[in-house]
Amino acid sequence: MSDARTDRDGLASPQRRHVLGRGLALVGGAVVGNAAAEKAAAESAAAPPDVPEWMKAPGADVGSEPYGSPSRFERDLIRNIPKSLPQYTSASSRTPLQDLDGIITPNGLFYERHHGGIPEIDPDRHRLMIHGLVERPLILTMAEIRRFPSESQIYFLECSGNPGFEAMTGRTASDLVGLVSCAEWTGVRLRTVLEEAGLKPEARWVVAEGADAAAMTRSIPLAKCLDDAMLVYSQNGERLRPQQGYPLRVLLPGFEGNMSVKWLRRLNVTAEPAHSREETSKYTDLMPDGTARQFTFMMEAKSIITRPSGTQRIARGFNEITGIAWSGRGRIAQVEVSVDDGQSWTVAQLQAPVLTRALTRFRLPWTWEGAPTTILSRATDETGYVQPHFAELTAVRGVKSFYHNNAIIPWRITASGEVTNGFLKA
Amino acid sequence: MSDARTDRDGLASPQRRHVLGRGLALVGGAVVGNAAAEKAAAESAAAPPDVPEWMKAPGADVGSEPYGSPSRFERDLIRNIPKSLPQYTSASSRTPLQDLDGIITPNGLFYERHHGGIPEIDPDRHRLMIHGLVERPLILTMAEIRRFPSESQIYFLECSGNPGFEAMTGRTASDLVGLVSCAEWTGVRLRTVLEEAGLKPEARWVVAEGADAAAMTRSIPLAKCLDDAMLVYSQNGERLRPQQGYPLRVLLPGFEGNMSVKWLRRLNVTAEPAHSREETSKYTDLMPDGTARQFTFMMEAKSIITRPSGTQRIARGFNEITGIAWSGRGRIAQVEVSVDDGQSWTVAQLQAPVLTRALTRFRLPWTWEGAPTTILSRATDETGYVQPHFAELTAVRGVKSFYHNNAIIPWRITASGEVTNGFLKA
Repeated sequence: MSDARTDRDGLASPQRRHVLGRGLALVGGAVVGNAAAEKAAAESAAAPPDVPEWMKAPGADVGSEPYGSPSRFERDLIRNIPKSLPQYTSASSRTPLQDLDGIITPNGLFYERHHGGIPEIDPDRHRLMIHGLVERPLILTMAEIRRFPSESQIYFLECSGNPGFEAMTGRTASDLVGLVSCAEWTGVRLRTVLEEAGLKPEARWVVAEGADAAAMTRSIPLAKCLDDAMLVYSQNGERLRPQQGYPLRVLLPGFEGNMSVKWLRRLNVTAEPAHSREETSKYTDLMPDGTARQFTFMMEAKSIITRPSGTQRIARGFNEITGIAWSGRGRIAQVEVSVDDGQSWTVAQLQAPVLTRALTRFRLPWTWEGAPTTILSRATDETGYVQPHFAELTAVRGVKSFYHNNAIIPWRITASGEVTNGFLKA
Repeated sequence: MSDARTDRDGLASPQRRHVLGRGLALVGGAVVGNAAAEKAAAESAAAPPDVPEWMKAPGADVGSEPYGSPSRFERDLIRNIPKSLPQYTSASSRTPLQDLDGIITPNGLFYERHHGGIPEIDPDRHRLMIHGLVERPLILTMAEIRRFPSESQIYFLECSGNPGFEAMTGRTASDLVGLVSCAEWTGVRLRTVLEEAGLKPEARWVVAEGADAAAMTRSIPLAKCLDDAMLVYSQNGERLRPQQGYPLRVLLPGFEGNMSVKWLRRLNVTAEPAHSREETSKYTDLMPDGTARQFTFMMEAKSIITRPSGTQRIARGFNEITGIAWSGRGRIAQVEVSVDDGQSWTVAQLQAPVLTRALTRFRLPWTWEGAPTTILSRATDETGYVQPHFAELTAVRGVKSFYHNNAIIPWRITASGEVTNGFLKA
């Protein structure tokens, strides 16, 4: 069993104990990054804790929450919703990445992006129509869709404007790249359903349409539909939430989130793409020469340090640097962390399992001596692609683009341990 | 990319298309296992769907739920709470396994077992004391615990009375074995914290105490504490729910759930076990000779078919058999399914990733021709241990035991497709 342990954490080294040895000296002192906790720590060192009042009487009944919810002490841990939007029908809310651990995003905190609000769909009345260049047009009920062979996969989902090129002024990790989340999805391989309908030889695209007020419409290349694309009805074990497309959505692993059409009602198999609004005036990339790149589906390799990150504060001594990395092209091969603004890089530990097109958690132990600095992370995926600096990105793409910004995110740390967005002036 | 697909589903074979071909004939007809869906399917074959009313007006605003919840059409998908308990302070609620997909249990539906109700703990006032046979007794705040190096692991958790030997009369999969769930846990390796305190040479056990009204107390062998045991503060990304031990619990992968003490306030390092109530009068196994086995920690290999399962109904033709398997000793090596009451067995597909001490989802395509039968699943883990029939279990253990019943679960299928508990008389 000790072998398994060594496999899993990769940290069982003399160096680790040394780091912890330094940590120990700190644990007894005032080290914890905010005044209240420092005070509490100082008190706790003085006397053992009394029996707390919550041990002196029975607690709440089993089943007091037939469907559970977080502690009331966590009521501020909610989706990050812009306060200044003109309207909320076509808008987004972000996952609070800086407060989350691991790689699974709980359904209640999964990011949202809607173009016509969130429809409330009766699953018994919902239908999926498959038509166009098929041998046998089909109209399927949800019960019929659930009869197909199923699969479950852990995949990230990310909005392609995460963040927009001109939207890098946020304070927190969530403000910057909170339009990414990760879940275990269950459904049927899209290929299976298309084979049921029978593709005609001239089929090249599948146009997906949502049953929301925006009738969200995106064209998906047939190759993706026959590869790892899914029709999804469950997320993290339970049925999709309304915000995520209940009762049925497309899931295109690694592609920009907008294409994973929610509230799916129609798949039209075609020879040409639809050139819908969301693939012409929107979700295209304006290049320096004035042309627009269309059908830029892939979400390239990216990472962000979530702790320490903007608005947090660190103390001198041991700090674990941790964050998430992901690539639409497959597995994360490596994440490097710099604690000196890019002068040098150290390979971080990756938490197993490292899954294709899923978030990957990385960690690096770090002892901060108190000098101001900037910390960075950069991901490399299994294709060898390396996450670029923002300047490298704009050298190719110019500054007129909005979508597909996967630049390295810098966090500035002041002498007092405050962490701020390194894109902004100090 | 097509290679990846073949790797992942293992189903890309001519046989699969044949099964689907048969399925196709059925999809157009009345095949879907309940009358309402059959009616809907018949209607849908007659005419294409109109534009539904939920496309004709904007839906709910983004952020209408800062912390999301399931669709109101899923309001019956809740924890399975016994209706006839004399009281609910020391009781349990079960995960609705038959309605869930994949391996991750959403936090709102994770099973509960409490002995003194659910305490409501202020994390800023919570303390963990580590004392006894240590060099440096420690009292840690939650902020201090979060400064230690972290790890994230997907592990199942299971009550040892799941089901009790005399409690195999339930109707659903949840009634029978709903005291098992699985999540991604984040926290600190217990070994790391114990090394911080410094173990004295005579240390052999660690006695964990919860801050609930039961002061739940269990003795953990030191070897487990130095292996894969964790102190956990997050579950599926967010902070632990109150029902799961907020703000801090022990997590002992593969051991009976009761030992993963919730609301953890104290770790007393000792030379001998505490012989607490929960490891003497309870959580021991009464053998045929009248002696009681004590400290039977390990949850042995087990599986259950969750679909089709009790109270569900199947239609003739293609049905996917799916369920979950797990072992406290490591990875699941194989799950076999029998569709003829154990006369013959077929190896099921395992959904990757197959993780140590996590739920593993298995699936087997099946065409049911309408004959009454009984279906079974049996798990084999990486140690070679095979899940026993109930008769094999009682031959060794007798019938006076309550805990550690990992028997094969039979589901009887009638000629009309109804599925019932095969332990009960037909």
